[in-house]
Amino acid sequence: MLRFILLFLLTASALHADDGYRLWLRYDRIANGELRDEYRRAASFIRYDGQGEVGMTARGELEAGLRDLLGEEVAQVSGENAGHGIYLGLRTALPRFARYLQDKAVAALGDEGYHLTYHDGDLLLIADGERGLLYGAFHLLRLLQQETPLSELNVTERPAYDYRILNHWDNLDGTVERGYAGFSIWNWHQLPEVIDRRYVDYARANASVGINGAVVTNVNANALVFRDDYLDKAAALADVFRPYGLKLYLTARFSAPLELGGLPTADPLDPAVIAWWQHKVEEIYARIPDFGGVVVKANSERQPGPREYGRTHAEGANLLADALAPHGGIVMWRAFVYTDRKDGDRFREAYDEFTPLDGQFRDNVLLQIKNGPIDFQPREPVSPLFAAMPQTPLLLELQITKEYLGQGTHLVGLASMYEEVLTTDLRPDRPGGQVHESIRGVAGVSNIGTARNWTGNLFGQADWYAFGRLSWQPTTPAREVFREWAALTFGNFPAVVEPVTQILERSYPACVNYMTPLGLHHIMATGHHYGPGPWVDDLERADWNPYYYHQATADSVGFDRTRTGSNALEQYPLSFARQYADPETCPSQFLLWFHRLPWDFPLADGNTLWQEMAVRYQRGVDTVDEMQTLWAGLENQIDPERFDQVSQHLAVQAREARWWRDACLAYFSAVSERDIPEGVPRPVRDLEHYRELDYPYAPGIRPRW
Amino acid sequence: MLRFILLFLLTASALHADDGYRLWLRYDRIANGELRDEYRRAASFIRYDGQGEVGMTARGELEAGLRDLLGEEVAQVSGENAGHGIYLGLRTALPRFARYLQDKAVAALGDEGYHLTYHDGDLLLIADGERGLLYGAFHLLRLLQQETPLSELNVTERPAYDYRILNHWDNLDGTVERGYAGFSIWNWHQLPEVIDRRYVDYARANASVGINGAVVTNVNANALVFRDDYLDKAAALADVFRPYGLKLYLTARFSAPLELGGLPTADPLDPAVIAWWQHKVEEIYARIPDFGGVVVKANSERQPGPREYGRTHAEGANLLADALAPHGGIVMWRAFVYTDRKDGDRFREAYDEFTPLDGQFRDNVLLQIKNGPIDFQPREPVSPLFAAMPQTPLLLELQITKEYLGQGTHLVGLASMYEEVLTTDLRPDRPGGQVHESIRGVAGVSNIGTARNWTGNLFGQADWYAFGRLSWQPTTPAREVFREWAALTFGNFPAVVEPVTQILERSYPACVNYMTPLGLHHIMATGHHYGPGPWVDDLERADWNPYYYHQATADSVGFDRTRTGSNALEQYPLSFARQYADPETCPSQFLLWFHRLPWDFPLADGNTLWQEMAVRYQRGVDTVDEMQTLWAGLENQIDPERFDQVSQHLAVQAREARWWRDACLAYFSAVSERDIPEGVPRPVRDLEHYRELDYPYAPGIRPRW
Repeated sequence: MLRFILLFLLTASALHADDGYRLWLRYDRIANGELRDEYRRAASFIRYDGQGEVGMTARGELEAGLRDLLGEEVAQVSGENAGHGIYLGLRTALPRFARYLQDKAVAALGDEGYHLTYHDGDLLLIADGERGLLYGAFHLLRLLQQETPLSELNVTERPAYDYRILNHWDNLDGTVERGYAGFSIWNWHQLPEVIDRRYVDYARANASVGINGAVVTNVNANALVFRDDYLDKAAALADVFRPYGLKLYLTARFSAPLELGGLPTADPLDPAVIAWWQHKVEEIYARIPDFGGVVVKANSERQPGPREYGRTHAEGANLLADALAPHGGIVMWRAFVYTDRKDGDRFREAYDEFTPLDGQFRDNVLLQIKNGPIDFQPREPVSPLFAAMPQTPLLLELQITKEYLGQGTHLVGLASMYEEVLTTDLRPDRPGGQVHESIRGVAGVSNIGTARNWTGNLFGQADWYAFGRLSWQPTTPAREVFREWAALTFGNFPAVVEPVTQILERSYPACVNYMTPLGLHHIMATGHHYGPGPWVDDLERADWNPYYYHQATADSVGFDRTRTGSNALEQYPLSFARQYADPETCPSQFLLWFHRLPWDFPLADGNTLWQEMAVRYQRGVDTVDEMQTLWAGLENQIDPERFDQVSQHLAVQAREARWWRDACLAYFSAVSERDIPEGVPRPVRDLEHYRELDYPYAPGIRPRW
Repeated sequence: MLRFILLFLLTASALHADDGYRLWLRYDRIANGELRDEYRRAASFIRYDGQGEVGMTARGELEAGLRDLLGEEVAQVSGENAGHGIYLGLRTALPRFARYLQDKAVAALGDEGYHLTYHDGDLLLIADGERGLLYGAFHLLRLLQQETPLSELNVTERPAYDYRILNHWDNLDGTVERGYAGFSIWNWHQLPEVIDRRYVDYARANASVGINGAVVTNVNANALVFRDDYLDKAAALADVFRPYGLKLYLTARFSAPLELGGLPTADPLDPAVIAWWQHKVEEIYARIPDFGGVVVKANSERQPGPREYGRTHAEGANLLADALAPHGGIVMWRAFVYTDRKDGDRFREAYDEFTPLDGQFRDNVLLQIKNGPIDFQPREPVSPLFAAMPQTPLLLELQITKEYLGQGTHLVGLASMYEEVLTTDLRPDRPGGQVHESIRGVAGVSNIGTARNWTGNLFGQADWYAFGRLSWQPTTPAREVFREWAALTFGNFPAVVEPVTQILERSYPACVNYMTPLGLHHIMATGHHYGPGPWVDDLERADWNPYYYHQATADSVGFDRTRTGSNALEQYPLSFARQYADPETCPSQFLLWFHRLPWDFPLADGNTLWQEMAVRYQRGVDTVDEMQTLWAGLENQIDPERFDQVSQHLAVQAREARWWRDACLAYFSAVSERDIPEGVPRPVRDLEHYRELDYPYAPGIRPRW
């Protein structure tokens, strides 16, 4: 401890340089003097003649970023200038480059796209909308941080989707459901008068990776956020977000007309209810002219919804959509619904509920679908809904917060999971069937909290970053995102970037292996979902029990979703389902998602199912050990504060990976009446020990309303 | 907003220099070059030959502080050296100065005292215990920060008390009861493996102002903290605290033997209970050899205690004291108890309960008494217990967190209140009767949370600072503490220090005036105590109702605690009580604490009671406006980030002071059937408006167990 303290004192004068707060926006001075000179020659001034709020922010970001990267101020100019500089502006405001753009055939860039190049000694950043300038400015800075030669600078980009949205599951009391990085960064009590600097830094971090919307409240919603005083608070946040091109969204509680309005019903077809929502939406737009819209979780996990009134989800969604449409707002209606029935297969429910409604939603409704059919498991097959709603705009909902993926302590590079989901082809027999081709945007459940480094686990920053980058361009390889993040976060040194990239690449398969290999799913402990609980079978609802999802007996394990079982596979296009229906051709990582198999079922590699399960649990542990070794090798190449933070979390992960392995193998070994296979260590403690562990204050507080 | 953002960007390269995290330990380079040279000549090296953990920390702090103050490294040496330097050591380890110390007749310095001087060109810091070196090092740095000439350096200090302890009301789930600076800084979930840098910075901040103990858990206690895994977590914190001379304490839940131990009783005389506690305490000391002891809130506000078993508080306290005594631990037993009876006067209860027990407590029990008899009101007469327990060691419990003093947004310099309490003379007829002379230590309910600047309101730092400094030397004038804090926090410039000191000096009387003038008390809104609620009269317990405390009617207002009423005054020494018993001589700020008076009662200044009440409410508002003006004058003399933080909070305070004034005057005007006196503005809204305001998520979360 003394060593630790003396180290802190030695670094005390640069007290917060490396606490991780700066994220990937570090802009440390470029070490390569020659390159710095090259950059300086091309950036002797910044010229921006516009007056728009977002454009001014773009200019300000460039100015501040360049000052730090180059170690000196860059002049802001207007009018004609000597020397070379950065020209920043809308295409229509830069006639001097009209010819160039024409020659290069730079097509329409939309509201958010940009063209960025090095031309005749100048740096050009040209867009057709102000937000394009902002995203282009961050792109340019990112390239300079990575020491890109100017001659290679030639970028024309437009985002794949209009909707790239963070979802905060933050409650008005400051707690965060499934939040593992402290508490909510929104201080609702002190808003609107007190503006925390963090709000600004949050908006700019989002803009820097292309995120253009934020739902600041929990999907388990509180009607109070629509009360006048709370709308004033929300408006203050929107004012902070606006210069960064970030739209504010809220969650709408379907029963708000009862709770806030004093109406006797929230029936979506009731004229008084319709009028109440119209009026409420007008109140919102009076305060927030660019309000984005609402997310709704209805008739799911005790949230109110249209079903109480015998209405469909479409009728419920359209109620809000009609109120929002005149103002340009949207409704993101969550498909994460499942009924309170004791039989059946929860896997099937969203599909069964929503596919009959395809075509019934208003144009400004987007159906927000979690990547998998159950609930953010470490690995899930993608939801069949992505191939089943051709007439409904879809949003893909991804988790960033890692409720089921190691929460605040495990290093798990989620870009790997995003990549897998986005590129899953649900119609392998014809083109256009990948998930990224069937959606109109991406929503990510935020991992951000009051932790100084934003995400608690420093590597959680990589997930925020990856979410933004893949929402912008969903076919970017995960490895590329990892490398980019590593370079921006730890410095553009191969000796650092390569090991960090390797750690990230190995981490997702590791986590799936030590938690839920071979398609095991939903076997986490109750409530907080922290740690293993495959033995749990005493919860009120059948499908809240881990046991429901594996049904292990002495003979077999797994959930039969083929024709002999729930036949959930029928919900997929045939060309996809065919492969998964046969345990011989089903990818082994999804095996127990779809098949109930004997423990001795032989796998392709010669192992039985039971042997392979044990081997994969062990492989997960081994991989975490390798990640620790890779990280340890960086000791003197990363500042001590961040190095120690990550080392401490990796130690937790290494211990908890063993906990997962030992608890799950102890349980399945007991149920299957089979010994732990050779080559895999026997669990250190007996099963009873693991069953009795309890963590009443594991983080991720549930809402109280 | 754009201006705000561009300002942020302009200061982005020094991104966190001025976010307030550094507290009063800023150590900015001394601007006066001549003085810096003088310091440098006297500090060309630091010599410390000891090996103790705390001494090493002292040396490390000096080294880091001097490096920043002087702008260059100061060598660490051992053996003989050329030039002048800092000699740091225990008296026994510095024979070369034995003669000097003898000549100066430096008496025994105890474990924590020190002698600090400039002698023959060297700086001497000499102590009889290692903690003395640490406190002396911080004292030296503080003097240098204030640009003290070396020739004036001649300090011999010992703290007034052995116990200078922060009480955190932090829950294991990360919430803080009565916390207004975010959430708990203790991440119990990730302890013991993850050590947040903030833990170290917390320990050093405490040491720098002489605080030597921290109770890290809430007095509304959770037995779980005594479970093995939580004790490991606590031990990890104790390891961080130890090098800073800070002892760790926990809160003990009286029913822990039932909840954790599975015993059928927690009867303090039951042999199994006695054995359980002995064993539990041994488990603690096995992990934390210097564990400080426990705080207990028993039989108060639904906390369990010895009464359930027909035992006295003394029997309850002695149970724990006997278990702790062999290890040197103490029990701090809170006197904040009141029964659930509907009649009587809560003011009397602690005295009635505890005075019969005087002399029955073990030597290692300290009775921890809140400053006032009710509950941390803006201004309270001091508790009569301070003059009524001659055979019992007493601790004074003060609030730092401001539950009833504006919480997280109001600037209220609590040193004024501490000074008033500490110097109150309960026996004005003879010497030795001041509160500070009757106690053995001070406990302060912490205002620290996850807010980046620790205390949410930047000026809350001044209260933490003042608590430490006055615990060390309780007769230091508040004004001196304010000046010192202002200089350390904003720089040693008269143009800054003077206005900041004035703001602080005016703030406490302002708050009392706009909240509870003339001795009004406990008229805050229910539960969270945020804002005014004098009308509340529907709570389950009579003495939870504001109405109980003022009983305003058309004729009169106030609580009669003289002989014609509850006669609580009889609990005070006669010489004190005599002055307060007569409304003509009772200090006007305490009038309604002791007297029930007609609204037309004439006061010394010629006003009626009603007129004076209105005038004081208005004066409170006016003073906040003056504070705002003083602060606004500092705009270019304080960094923009901290300047804006404080400006925003002052705006809230100015609005809320008006809210208090208007709501209370509207209410008392209605009840008394009197118009608002001339010269005071009429409330903007009608009484109903103020009664209907509600704030369900005002911060300060109550425990859930």
